[in-house]
Amino acid sequence: MEKKNISGAVIKRLPRYYHCLKELSNDGIQKISSNVISGKLNVTASQVRQDFSNFGEFGQQGYGYDVEYLKNQMAKILGLNKEYNAIIIGGGNIGKALANYQGFKSEGFNILAVFDINPESVKLKNIPVLNVDKLKEYLQNNKIDICIIATDKESAKETAAKAVKFGICAIWNFAPIELYFGENVAVENINMSESLFMLAYNMKTRLKA
Amino acid sequence: MEKKNISGAVIKRLPRYYHCLKELSNDGIQKISSNVISGKLNVTASQVRQDFSNFGEFGQQGYGYDVEYLKNQMAKILGLNKEYNAIIIGGGNIGKALANYQGFKSEGFNILAVFDINPESVKLKNIPVLNVDKLKEYLQNNKIDICIIATDKESAKETAAKAVKFGICAIWNFAPIELYFGENVAVENINMSESLFMLAYNMKTRLKA
Repeated sequence: MEKKNISGAVIKRLPRYYHCLKELSNDGIQKISSNVISGKLNVTASQVRQDFSNFGEFGQQGYGYDVEYLKNQMAKILGLNKEYNAIIIGGGNIGKALANYQGFKSEGFNILAVFDINPESVKLKNIPVLNVDKLKEYLQNNKIDICIIATDKESAKETAAKAVKFGICAIWNFAPIELYFGENVAVENINMSESLFMLAYNMKTRLKA
Repeated sequence: MEKKNISGAVIKRLPRYYHCLKELSNDGIQKISSNVISGKLNVTASQVRQDFSNFGEFGQQGYGYDVEYLKNQMAKILGLNKEYNAIIIGGGNIGKALANYQGFKSEGFNILAVFDINPESVKLKNIPVLNVDKLKEYLQNNKIDICIIATDKESAKETAAKAVKFGICAIWNFAPIELYFGENVAVENINMSESLFMLAYNMKTRLKA
């Protein structure tokens, strides 16, 4: 199925579908209707059916969709059928929260180390905290796929640029600044302010209605 | 300008434009070209021009767009020309990171209190930490616009449902579960796993290219 071209709009919904299917699979559910997925994700049932038809799975009337099959198809398309190694730069509250979160490992994302300018001040169980001076050496000696930026806004760009220079091709950015390093580096920016702005917009439009 | 209908796709880009224009304004920049904004945000210059034309601002050849004017127009549309009061439920690493982040206040979002099942264990400067038992009473006595959910996945839904029951109409959710309370409650889910999945997808498509 992978050869079929799937539109960008569908791709953007895939992570939510995948997340939902994974939960259903963990709960031991084998078949699911588009209506149930619609209710869980606030996407119309017809949109769900249309999106799922991209995977050659049309669901059987009265039986629904095969959860495991769809989950695996989506995992393949998203590139989740493999493991990734990641490091975190910045050991503040956000960095610590990410390092402590157990959910990433179960998705195949292993956080191997945290880097900080002040490593002694960062207390973490099970994950080594290293001085950011050691970044180049560490990246040369370890196969790291993803660099997670959890620094403050001021140092985010410079820090990420260093990681890219040292060979990193994927940046997951939590600093409140938009990072971009051209077409060859995958970047996902978690800009919390922007999400908060959308919330304000949604509050406003609801109050009017 | 507000009466003009602006499409959902443009609205989704507004927070990024607004964020960018605010930074430019803070840096004392008065005029900006669509090319510069394009470079900063990884949106094509023609897309920027098309989006900005929704605000009746077409930019002058060789002079560019008026930063302050556009910023203010977008703030009005997004509902950012007023202040909001927020509380955080959950005083773990994410809750603390959000409580300590200074950026929200400057956008007009005031975090007034943090609630936790174990308030003594949460050390915060300047923000009171209260027992979650006091939530109902607190919401009855204080005008709170937004409830930020920073609990674990297991208690997120129940906690948010309580806040909604006590009159909250806007939820900003950081727990790794999708929350939805119907059309009358504004919900923004920050689902980090989903962003990570998009990163994996983008890595995969880049490696292929």
